[in-house]
Amino acid sequence: MYRRCTITQVKRILGIDPGYARLGWGVIDVTDNKDELVAFGCFETPKSEEFSTRLAIIDKELLSILNEHNPTDIVIEELFFGKNTRTAMNVAHARGVIMLRAAHHSGKIYSYRPNQIKTATTENIKAKKPEIQEAVRQILNLESIPKPDDAADALAVAITHARLT
Amino acid sequence: MYRRCTITQVKRILGIDPGYARLGWGVIDVTDNKDELVAFGCFETPKSEEFSTRLAIIDKELLSILNEHNPTDIVIEELFFGKNTRTAMNVAHARGVIMLRAAHHSGKIYSYRPNQIKTATTENIKAKKPEIQEAVRQILNLESIPKPDDAADALAVAITHARLT
Repeated sequence: MYRRCTITQVKRILGIDPGYARLGWGVIDVTDNKDELVAFGCFETPKSEEFSTRLAIIDKELLSILNEHNPTDIVIEELFFGKNTRTAMNVAHARGVIMLRAAHHSGKIYSYRPNQIKTATTENIKAKKPEIQEAVRQILNLESIPKPDDAADALAVAITHARLT
Repeated sequence: MYRRCTITQVKRILGIDPGYARLGWGVIDVTDNKDELVAFGCFETPKSEEFSTRLAIIDKELLSILNEHNPTDIVIEELFFGKNTRTAMNVAHARGVIMLRAAHHSGKIYSYRPNQIKTATTENIKAKKPEIQEAVRQILNLESIPKPDDAADALAVAITHARLT
């Protein structure tokens, strides 16, 4: 007689769609190449607050998400250098705060560019947002697309990491 | 007979020249419109480390400076949108971390644009770095220009705040 022991390695991925006004997040578990939804959400920081206070809110909310879901891998979308440099700069400030909080939680931080996310989820580098969100719904076997959009985007980031590692 | 009580309000300003590879800082005391040097310095983060680790080093070093000098006002130079967007984005990540740490220390955070710093220190909006640094030396009544340049730049940021408030 012998005992057989099967260890299933679960990778728990937290995907983040970074922002300073609104931040989307999504957690998935990856087991044997199956992606399973754990949780998702979105939080906002009040426009009426000082920018540094908004950064402190982001840090606090993220800490609470990390403590609750304890991800093994944290994935933050890379920034797109659009026309609005001021907005991009503010998002970069927030992204720095997110990276630092993630570093305190775990050493494993990953980043993907928008094009990588499009390709990994839809196999179409020119995919628009609705197409990516529908892919997220299908991959995670959900009845409807997660809302708001920022949360669906964050789940796409997490799925990208699951597929590219 | 009567006693006369004089209370001199000291403003202690920490000026920061933000960066992710190298960060300059300088502390001055302002009493009755006199600017007096307290301390200045500069620290670097190793290129060999992960970016998130470099952010964590910045956070830790800044915490130590705040604890040692306990400034009433923290002033961080605004970012200049130069040609190198990637570098500017990385500095913005660091600046977010700096702002958050400053917010935890005190609610008083200020920012000035490079042009404001030039005008406040030299009265010349077209001033080059050596001219600003010489102004820092004169204003603080020093024998020589503080080194390295990043520290002198940070003192210029602190002086700007002293003059504009």
